[in-house]
Amino acid sequence: ILVACDRTDRANSDPSIGGSDLPQIKWRMVTSWPKSLDTIYGGAQTVCDRVSAMTGGRFSIEFYAAGEIVPGLEVLDAVQNGTAECGHTASYYYVGKNPALAFGTSVPFGLTAQQQNAWYYHGGGLAAMHELYSDFNIINFPAGNTGAQMGGWFKKEIKSLQDLKGLKMRIPGLGGEVMSRLGVNVQVIPGGEIYLALERGAIDAAEWVGPYDDQKLGLNKAASYYYYPGWWEPGPTLEVQVNKSQWEKLPVEYQEIFKTAAMEANLNMLSKYDALNRKALKSLTDSGTKLVAYPPEVLQAGKEAAESYYAEQSAKSSAFKKVYDQWNQFRSAISEWNKINELSYTSFVNK
Amino acid sequence: ILVACDRTDRANSDPSIGGSDLPQIKWRMVTSWPKSLDTIYGGAQTVCDRVSAMTGGRFSIEFYAAGEIVPGLEVLDAVQNGTAECGHTASYYYVGKNPALAFGTSVPFGLTAQQQNAWYYHGGGLAAMHELYSDFNIINFPAGNTGAQMGGWFKKEIKSLQDLKGLKMRIPGLGGEVMSRLGVNVQVIPGGEIYLALERGAIDAAEWVGPYDDQKLGLNKAASYYYYPGWWEPGPTLEVQVNKSQWEKLPVEYQEIFKTAAMEANLNMLSKYDALNRKALKSLTDSGTKLVAYPPEVLQAGKEAAESYYAEQSAKSSAFKKVYDQWNQFRSAISEWNKINELSYTSFVNK
Repeated sequence: ILVACDRTDRANSDPSIGGSDLPQIKWRMVTSWPKSLDTIYGGAQTVCDRVSAMTGGRFSIEFYAAGEIVPGLEVLDAVQNGTAECGHTASYYYVGKNPALAFGTSVPFGLTAQQQNAWYYHGGGLAAMHELYSDFNIINFPAGNTGAQMGGWFKKEIKSLQDLKGLKMRIPGLGGEVMSRLGVNVQVIPGGEIYLALERGAIDAAEWVGPYDDQKLGLNKAASYYYYPGWWEPGPTLEVQVNKSQWEKLPVEYQEIFKTAAMEANLNMLSKYDALNRKALKSLTDSGTKLVAYPPEVLQAGKEAAESYYAEQSAKSSAFKKVYDQWNQFRSAISEWNKINELSYTSFVNK
Repeated sequence: ILVACDRTDRANSDPSIGGSDLPQIKWRMVTSWPKSLDTIYGGAQTVCDRVSAMTGGRFSIEFYAAGEIVPGLEVLDAVQNGTAECGHTASYYYVGKNPALAFGTSVPFGLTAQQQNAWYYHGGGLAAMHELYSDFNIINFPAGNTGAQMGGWFKKEIKSLQDLKGLKMRIPGLGGEVMSRLGVNVQVIPGGEIYLALERGAIDAAEWVGPYDDQKLGLNKAASYYYYPGWWEPGPTLEVQVNKSQWEKLPVEYQEIFKTAAMEANLNMLSKYDALNRKALKSLTDSGTKLVAYPPEVLQAGKEAAESYYAEQSAKSSAFKKVYDQWNQFRSAISEWNKINELSYTSFVNK
């Protein structure tokens, strides 16, 4: 009797037939995050915790901070070559491999968090990203969003486009590309080194995430002016990447559980950030931080520079053009809708 | 051997110990929705489909349209008395049992969809609602959101507060309560009867949901002026309600799977509505619908009437006051944050 109920026997039978046991599986998840970024790192934790809870611990995934197994910006490579079965990261770290991967996370003057989700789940986004990632033997799922970020810390007030010229600012990625076109002397510095560089005046400005994370780095003690909005990251999606060969070995139930756990992480992280940032913002303004809106001429020049960049990339890469054209059409249409329903409402209640 | 592997035997052992079989369970889910409201009814379907997919069909839930087992507005009663194990509905249908249940869905000049999620998952909302529902032997989880709705169809233009006086408008719930304080002659008519009443002039105005659902009812053929925003439902949450005694009998894995399936339904419905509404809005305006913003004086008077209502309810009911005070504090703080990050961004890109 005991033998007949043994797990090994049953693991060979079709696992989706009701009543048969599901196998014990152990995976590793590498991430791009230091543990100190607890809300983003928490997205990896949500996926792993929920998968374990939903399978009674049968499918367990151990997750690792950046550098513990591979460097933070090599998650895609580690998942592709099978060093880890899966990873939690941001697609835009890999634009060197394919510039169209930027759309999976966020681009300057792009989608808000809610629009990003509508694009992913019902606007062709997930299919577009799956196609891009198939070149890497990877399948991806959204698994977190920070919401619209802030526009960075400045030691001096920025009253015009002219005030940006020559300013040394820590800002990586496409935000940096656009700022550089506006005359900013763009610097790329790891998170842990921003505070000292800003405090000592080695840089004049720096962007990180939003009130909660920025306060933890102490950036408010190194600069007084906190600009908004973070137009280069209006709703960045974080994601899980899974090695496709490993994915295909999973029982169907575990694939479905993993996908839904990723959706929970996606929704949960955004809700958590909104709840945490509301408190952190108050604490910052209470202790002297000055909130300042970017001058309209800076936003306008940034938008034009971003559009030039998209046109140039589209001319250079057909993969970029294909995703951009679809995405841009979606963006226009959903903006028309959100302008009517959400924006007209929030403009009234928040005035 | 067959007997030893029988489900009954195993259901008695701790189901969370890896390797043991999980039981076959069949539940019924009653809903408040006609099948024609396919996006909202689809929220019930998402929960049931995902639970089945994640358990390989072992935990299956059959869902029913309004009226198939119980009337649409008696879902809570059916779940409470065990007619069905669970239901998909909106908490605000049951304000007659406890007025504080309104906050679980949406209230006039309340939270947007994203804020509603932040309140539920990280702002004390889920705990507050669980406390309210414990009186009914029910546990609830958010499982859908329509996003900010539209402000209804009018046969004539509304240029001032004065134009609302005596107007016959189909608008139920707290929206109707506020409109009635503005002098509107409030009518409550089921969805399926709105078109004829509006077309024949028995009513002068009617609200339903948003472009996608309104177009299906044909409301654009009965009235030309489509007002925005739907300030009485800025981000309504739909939910699953589960009979607590049934809930406690579930294996832990099935509880976790059910909860995550509800989160998927929550995120998925909002994304789907945004994607569908963007197309429906264009189709409406292409065929002659005139989009009109509510005059600021109507919004202002509506806001004041809503605040009076909240103050009156707080004076009458300590349960209402307790939820309202906590919710209102959350609303103020998160509005301060979203004003800075999201609103400053969307105001620029959508102008």
